[in-house]
Amino acid sequence: MKELQEKIRKEGIVLPNNVLKVDSFINHQMDPKLMKKIGEEFAKRFKAEGITKVLTIESSGIAPAIMAALELDVPVIFARKRKPLTFSGNLFCASVYSYTKKETNEITVSKDYLLNSDTVLIIDDFLANGQAALGLIDLVEQADAKVAGIGIVIEKSFQDGAKLITDKGYHLESLARIGSLENGKVTFVNDAVLSI
Amino acid sequence: MKELQEKIRKEGIVLPNNVLKVDSFINHQMDPKLMKKIGEEFAKRFKAEGITKVLTIESSGIAPAIMAALELDVPVIFARKRKPLTFSGNLFCASVYSYTKKETNEITVSKDYLLNSDTVLIIDDFLANGQAALGLIDLVEQADAKVAGIGIVIEKSFQDGAKLITDKGYHLESLARIGSLENGKVTFVNDAVLSI
Repeated sequence: MKELQEKIRKEGIVLPNNVLKVDSFINHQMDPKLMKKIGEEFAKRFKAEGITKVLTIESSGIAPAIMAALELDVPVIFARKRKPLTFSGNLFCASVYSYTKKETNEITVSKDYLLNSDTVLIIDDFLANGQAALGLIDLVEQADAKVAGIGIVIEKSFQDGAKLITDKGYHLESLARIGSLENGKVTFVNDAVLSI
Repeated sequence: MKELQEKIRKEGIVLPNNVLKVDSFINHQMDPKLMKKIGEEFAKRFKAEGITKVLTIESSGIAPAIMAALELDVPVIFARKRKPLTFSGNLFCASVYSYTKKETNEITVSKDYLLNSDTVLIIDDFLANGQAALGLIDLVEQADAKVAGIGIVIEKSFQDGAKLITDKGYHLESLARIGSLENGKVTFVNDAVLSI
């Protein structure tokens, strides 16, 4: 998605340890018009899949997920990283290890909203090692629901997540695919292909 | 906002200790079309204020805030309940005590995005004791920015928050105002007025 790549190139900041900071338009401040276009792009790429629900994880996944759900005209659920007090015990749980934060979160979703009749589009802001996406896939499969696909705003293609997910046969669509963050410079996968 | 009241009446579940569970359309599963209408309603109520930015707090505030920001055509920032690793030290911080969770969170927003030239609309899903809203007001005032107003999806009018905020002179707009949750029944403030 060209507009997203341009925004990343213009406003993304490369930090040490392959961290890409996109706090000015995705992870802290958000650009609502860009988010709407991101949602429309996900809806376009997955429209043939018969999606009945969108699933994401708090917090940065919520904006792209609700825009995709708006366009697909289905409900959206966000998995919690902590059990809220108003949840009953009726939960699907999965463990997600964050390499960035070096901690394991127990992510949860209520059994009331993820049904075995659902065809679920999973949306998240970043795909790096794939642990969050695999945790969300786990929740959907615990519900005996169908994973229609995984939609990612920014994929770090040089890390393991994308391969882990596509090797398992899931339909992955990433709107920006980063091939490298070496020397503080963002290189997209299609740039690398073009330069061969 | 009539459609919201009807949804609360139909799907809201009253739990002990005056907890209203709206997990089927606001706090866990979300209804994107209703969220869009909520955003449009906030934009309508605050359109005269010259808003330059919307501020909310993760996680349940994000959906109504991004829809309001989309309609107002301004960026939206969500305050964090924990310091993320990719934030530099450049933060405004406020302490927010949660009566529900019985814990204090240090909420933060980057100084890069909240500027003294900003006129800020604060959005949150619930207003009960007002601690989160007061924390967000504190962040805006630390930045020497202007608080244009506070937009709340569901106000528990029988708790202290609304009075605390309006007594300080802020413009508060709540789309649904709950007068009582007694005997497991949701009574709206306008119902109470109508029945006098």
